[in-house]
Amino acid sequence: MQGICLLGATGSIGQSTLDIIAQHPDKFVLIGASANESVVKMADICHRFKPQRVVMGSEKARDQLALLCVGLPISFEWGDDALDSIASDSAVDQVMAAIMGFAGLKPTLAGIRAGKRTLLANKESLVTAGKLFMDEVARHNVVLLPIDSEHNAIYQSLPQTIHGAHKKDISKILLTASGGPFRSWSLDEMVSVTPEQACKHPNWSMGQKISIDSASLMNKGLELIEACWLFDVTPNDIEVVVHPESIVHSMVSYRDGSVIAQMGNPDMKIPIAYGMTWPNRIETQVPPLSLVDVACLNFESPDISRFPNLQLAADAWFMGGTAMAVLNAVNEVAVAAFLNRKIAFLDIAKVNAQVLNSANIVPVNTLEDVFESDLYARRLAEDIISLGDF
Amino acid sequence: MQGICLLGATGSIGQSTLDIIAQHPDKFVLIGASANESVVKMADICHRFKPQRVVMGSEKARDQLALLCVGLPISFEWGDDALDSIASDSAVDQVMAAIMGFAGLKPTLAGIRAGKRTLLANKESLVTAGKLFMDEVARHNVVLLPIDSEHNAIYQSLPQTIHGAHKKDISKILLTASGGPFRSWSLDEMVSVTPEQACKHPNWSMGQKISIDSASLMNKGLELIEACWLFDVTPNDIEVVVHPESIVHSMVSYRDGSVIAQMGNPDMKIPIAYGMTWPNRIETQVPPLSLVDVACLNFESPDISRFPNLQLAADAWFMGGTAMAVLNAVNEVAVAAFLNRKIAFLDIAKVNAQVLNSANIVPVNTLEDVFESDLYARRLAEDIISLGDF
Repeated sequence: MQGICLLGATGSIGQSTLDIIAQHPDKFVLIGASANESVVKMADICHRFKPQRVVMGSEKARDQLALLCVGLPISFEWGDDALDSIASDSAVDQVMAAIMGFAGLKPTLAGIRAGKRTLLANKESLVTAGKLFMDEVARHNVVLLPIDSEHNAIYQSLPQTIHGAHKKDISKILLTASGGPFRSWSLDEMVSVTPEQACKHPNWSMGQKISIDSASLMNKGLELIEACWLFDVTPNDIEVVVHPESIVHSMVSYRDGSVIAQMGNPDMKIPIAYGMTWPNRIETQVPPLSLVDVACLNFESPDISRFPNLQLAADAWFMGGTAMAVLNAVNEVAVAAFLNRKIAFLDIAKVNAQVLNSANIVPVNTLEDVFESDLYARRLAEDIISLGDF
Repeated sequence: MQGICLLGATGSIGQSTLDIIAQHPDKFVLIGASANESVVKMADICHRFKPQRVVMGSEKARDQLALLCVGLPISFEWGDDALDSIASDSAVDQVMAAIMGFAGLKPTLAGIRAGKRTLLANKESLVTAGKLFMDEVARHNVVLLPIDSEHNAIYQSLPQTIHGAHKKDISKILLTASGGPFRSWSLDEMVSVTPEQACKHPNWSMGQKISIDSASLMNKGLELIEACWLFDVTPNDIEVVVHPESIVHSMVSYRDGSVIAQMGNPDMKIPIAYGMTWPNRIETQVPPLSLVDVACLNFESPDISRFPNLQLAADAWFMGGTAMAVLNAVNEVAVAAFLNRKIAFLDIAKVNAQVLNSANIVPVNTLEDVFESDLYARRLAEDIISLGDF
């Protein structure tokens, strides 16, 4: 029986994780759960799963939740310290790190420092603080399983015998990308893209921010950085391959000419269950993949001229230090500005490039360096956006 | 340094194996080699690789070869006992079993009984004597690596941690088939197929017999039986998927919804090198797969009504005993008759069905049972063909 702490319980990853827990009550028990402000959804989780501890993003949300859960034997808490505390709770075996954005970094690290198996669905942790993060993983000898479908696929396609020991046999990681809703649009057509159009991801049902990032290929850029940290490679070792059907979730190319791929219907329950049960597997109720029904899998190269975010991510990795945290931060600001109709879709990459190339990049020695560069880049991005200077 | 015995050195698998040996003279040395009658090709091998021992199919071929290799320090031998002897030679670490057809069974077993790592490119060994064969593999605790591209792909897609121990996690083996040159022909069009048309395999360069078997899908049927023995499953656990590009060489579907696939350019050097170096990998000079260049991978269901051999193979597996040896034997006779223009292409499956369903099937307790059923089925097939009674 594995005790689960679910950071980000009300998002889509959180919901899929709860699905797996509900399917296998003999294997998993929800110990802790967190959400920011989604009181009603969290109340439902409390009634269904009766976790020992729940953490909300504010005192007000905590109080509202407690009112909806009167009589349940749950500790209702709020704030950052409480988040760290449930991630490191002694009853927890696995932490599902599914808080979106930069906010997920601290509690995820708290879980790692407590030696918990870490299921990483928060890509910003690695993007912004990759070196510090991986150092902590190594120091505490933690099992780190990537939950992003692509990184999970890469993990599944790597040799499992002596994990990581066969690096010399690997010639390339092939990171697949759906290409997003504008894959086949011209630059001219992309000028007037609306937030509604950008949020329509062809294959995955996801949140707004990540949908925009998928449409701009910044999501793939962040995944590129994430993969570099997770698998100890550089952007030169990774080829992004556009694959509109999102059936092949990623691949590893070996020096003998073999390519190992993980495929499946696009449903996050597959990588989530894999992370929760590795090195074993369990049923997920996801329908088995029928390649005959899919009929055709297509592959093409990404077009950097229309999706410059992909190049920016590789640039940021090679710049090193705080460059990746800066890129992540300016992108969050730029996406928010696009969603608020302050800038156009194609401006997202322009703002990102402007900030990345003008920002002062310094080495990352502590988490403070990351936090500071994050704040600094956000301010820079807001200035640039309000001045229209990009 | 691994000592290699290459049974079937002058065929296409043999040549690819020699390519790998030539590329890695620091890792492999050719100890023994065999061929049936290809004296000139074998003389070339002798001059290039200088094996210690060479076995030919007849005394005459042996003498001709010796004349072409005067001065080389090689023992020139001939016949079945000599074949068994080089496969079990003390200087041999690995036996590449690449003799085509039923003739490959005995020397392959000799290598297994001597405890040699066995690279199995001869599918008839498993098809005709699967249970005896796998029993010997288990008894002598031999590493058996399948070299057929499909079975090698399945092997690569299975969990490598505790090989075979995760069987409960596997929901299905997906065996891919190119579909052959007549994949999209109607039954009417297939009536007048010529041997020349049938030998044109779309993706692989292969011998005549296996090309015909690919065109009639009997090759896939034999592979289905082979997979049942290799991976301890039944035809119900295997789904044949037609995939015309032959890029995905086969797949394993897991109960969580994941499908692991091995892909690559269609070149036998990849599975051969994998077998020779497992659990490591080496360079093969096969160009890396570019999915962007391939652009599209297609999948469809096989049409049993046009390719009944696939069903006959599953039937034979469930009939058990000598049924598979019978099917293999009648098919060799029927293919030869087709190549000699005695029967039509579609008659191959009719003759196969006729013999399989009328033959006396008995349990396989010894190799003699297999040999006898082989001879018996050949005679039955020849009678049926000469009488035109199918």
